[in-house]
Amino acid sequence: MKVRFINARLLTMKNGAHISEGELWVENERISYVGEKKKTTIKFDRIIDCQGNVLMPGFKNAHTHSAMTFLRSYADDLPLKEWLYDKVFPVEARVTVDDIYHLSKLAFAEYVASGITADFDMYYHPEATAKASVDFGFRTVCLGTVTKFKESVPEMVKSFKEINGKNGLVTYRLGFHAEFTTTEEILIALSQAADELKTPIFTHISETAAEVQGCIERHGTTPVMYFEKLGLFNHGGGGFHCVWLTDEEMTIFKKRGLWAVTCPASNAKLSSGVAPIQKMADMGINLAIGTDGAASNNSLDFFKEMFLVTALQKIITKDPKAANPYMILEMATVGGAHAMGLNNADILEAGKLADLIMIDLNKPNMQPINNIIKNLVYSGNISNVALTMINGKILYENGQYFIGEPIENIYQKANEITQRIKTTK
Amino acid sequence: MKVRFINARLLTMKNGAHISEGELWVENERISYVGEKKKTTIKFDRIIDCQGNVLMPGFKNAHTHSAMTFLRSYADDLPLKEWLYDKVFPVEARVTVDDIYHLSKLAFAEYVASGITADFDMYYHPEATAKASVDFGFRTVCLGTVTKFKESVPEMVKSFKEINGKNGLVTYRLGFHAEFTTTEEILIALSQAADELKTPIFTHISETAAEVQGCIERHGTTPVMYFEKLGLFNHGGGGFHCVWLTDEEMTIFKKRGLWAVTCPASNAKLSSGVAPIQKMADMGINLAIGTDGAASNNSLDFFKEMFLVTALQKIITKDPKAANPYMILEMATVGGAHAMGLNNADILEAGKLADLIMIDLNKPNMQPINNIIKNLVYSGNISNVALTMINGKILYENGQYFIGEPIENIYQKANEITQRIKTTK
Repeated sequence: MKVRFINARLLTMKNGAHISEGELWVENERISYVGEKKKTTIKFDRIIDCQGNVLMPGFKNAHTHSAMTFLRSYADDLPLKEWLYDKVFPVEARVTVDDIYHLSKLAFAEYVASGITADFDMYYHPEATAKASVDFGFRTVCLGTVTKFKESVPEMVKSFKEINGKNGLVTYRLGFHAEFTTTEEILIALSQAADELKTPIFTHISETAAEVQGCIERHGTTPVMYFEKLGLFNHGGGGFHCVWLTDEEMTIFKKRGLWAVTCPASNAKLSSGVAPIQKMADMGINLAIGTDGAASNNSLDFFKEMFLVTALQKIITKDPKAANPYMILEMATVGGAHAMGLNNADILEAGKLADLIMIDLNKPNMQPINNIIKNLVYSGNISNVALTMINGKILYENGQYFIGEPIENIYQKANEITQRIKTTK
Repeated sequence: MKVRFINARLLTMKNGAHISEGELWVENERISYVGEKKKTTIKFDRIIDCQGNVLMPGFKNAHTHSAMTFLRSYADDLPLKEWLYDKVFPVEARVTVDDIYHLSKLAFAEYVASGITADFDMYYHPEATAKASVDFGFRTVCLGTVTKFKESVPEMVKSFKEINGKNGLVTYRLGFHAEFTTTEEILIALSQAADELKTPIFTHISETAAEVQGCIERHGTTPVMYFEKLGLFNHGGGGFHCVWLTDEEMTIFKKRGLWAVTCPASNAKLSSGVAPIQKMADMGINLAIGTDGAASNNSLDFFKEMFLVTALQKIITKDPKAANPYMILEMATVGGAHAMGLNNADILEAGKLADLIMIDLNKPNMQPINNIIKNLVYSGNISNVALTMINGKILYENGQYFIGEPIENIYQKANEITQRIKTTK
């Protein structure tokens, strides 16, 4: 499939956020040209006139649990530990592999409507998420999530070898749920596996103050220092949330090039706190953004997350210049891609994967056009996503899905599964 | 025009937020029936099958400056005083009455797409906003905004008498910009006018800590105590923002039944702070929500505001139960209506004005259906607004506007005006 986008405003994200005019060509799964208007003899299957709308890299959702859509608005208004142990874990025990397949698709539908073209998906049974991803056409980086209750390091190593390289849409990385849900034995085994595979490790880190306090009680130190001692970050990686990192821990993040992935809506909703994003940016720490799962957020809307990152930094720093829109867009696209190992889907450039979105400026929230970069972060919303292309295929255009099945099937299946899970004793 | 909505989930907001099934009839500008499925011999002009989607009162935007759309993404990342004096006031001086007419329409287009059916519109030349409102079909409560630079109390009294009662879509109330932009003479004259007209007064109150400090230096007391001394609230009224109210001031709010209108996005973006909404709710203070103007927010999206109100309260109180979704919906609909004097457009009930919206549940962010009230506040977004009806007329349906002119005209006009204002010396 060859697609030519003409009359576009290009926001390639190469060397920062700035707009130029031109066109973009897609041949099969890759971008073949980005630049000024150009003559060509190539026969395109489709020519899309962008009419001055913006083409940009899709957003990268660098932390989520896609299959948890069934818990949207099921258990709210609780602190993290009660929410997780009393509400989430008991019903999660009833989720089947087949459920994960269907529930993940519901999240993917929400992602593409929000301009998200790839996710870093931490959940059990990655084979189910991987299959959902391939069938839907969505790009997923599956993340192992060993705990002392579920999965094991050998199972993760098996998944690593089986999933990577099998399909261009799906990759797999090593991870663990959190310090408080694992044992030192598990973490040592994981560290050894990462050494053998020469691969980074990701996990939930310092989401709540109580988690940090618990780690100090159990191990005499804070989570990052504990993980560092175990050699977990010898090949890089990063942490999700990072609300309560100490200065010493941030120095480790900087030294090792670790990624801090912020999830502001989830952290707010669970009263976990606000991550010090501007401070980390000033230290040169790698940053990305995630929605977290629908169980805690409850939406999977990247415009909401982008606005929250900047709004919350402006509040906690008392500085309206904090977390400016250029930095936010960098985190949301290039940052996320690099955190997830998707270096071939980070910017719009010839040779890169065609994971891109078209932003419709012909909506009242984008008018008048004073500054498109600021509009995207400060006033953008999902009504501005006119088109979402992943791996060269258009999955979403003008509110319609092109995913090989009617979207209503996905809703129906999710409701059936949710009912069964909620009513089973 | 007679419209019958069948197969609806009804969220009437009568006695709180809860869902029932049934139908709703509109005859001319009013609701004529809400309740269970019912036989009738009335000949309707249109029957709309809601297919299980939600009918609810439209959101009431209880603080905004609609015409300021031209300043969206024009001056950002500044603290309030610099933003206002260095960026906003100089360009505002070039805005004409005709500009206000066109720029307000752009805001109305954004409101109806976001499910907002009425706004409390603080701006100069209310006659221009009133005309825009009538021509568009939008419901506006114009608010006088006297300062020591612009407008006067006699002009406001004239507007009060001229605008009120002239058209069912528009009313007018007395207000002033803020303590720091007025003089005691103006406020005394305003207090006397309110006594004569027996009408409430609204103003910006304690948006920033610096504003409160300045008031103490100028008048030896905090803003609300100063206004109270001048008798400004003898007939009720309220304040916009209310970020830095003292306990003593909150007691005045409670005693006089004043409305605290919170604008969380604007307050965050300008680093002004977070209003203590849960604390005020616990004291029984009347609460409503506003977007503020596009110059500071920068969007006019009620879903964003609703989520921010709850998210920010959960952060500052460290209590995930704070500002629960039932309370947020109450503030967003009934609260706003009562703050604005629109007691006839607060809930869905026979005899009330037909200002209502249909919420589309067939979007991924609303699935599965565990709790619709929570979904509306925690995961709702503007893609869920399927229909917006004001005064019995459908102005917005499935992304299309029915406002007597092409929406593109409004965009074009706003861009022309903005260019002229920005480039005039």
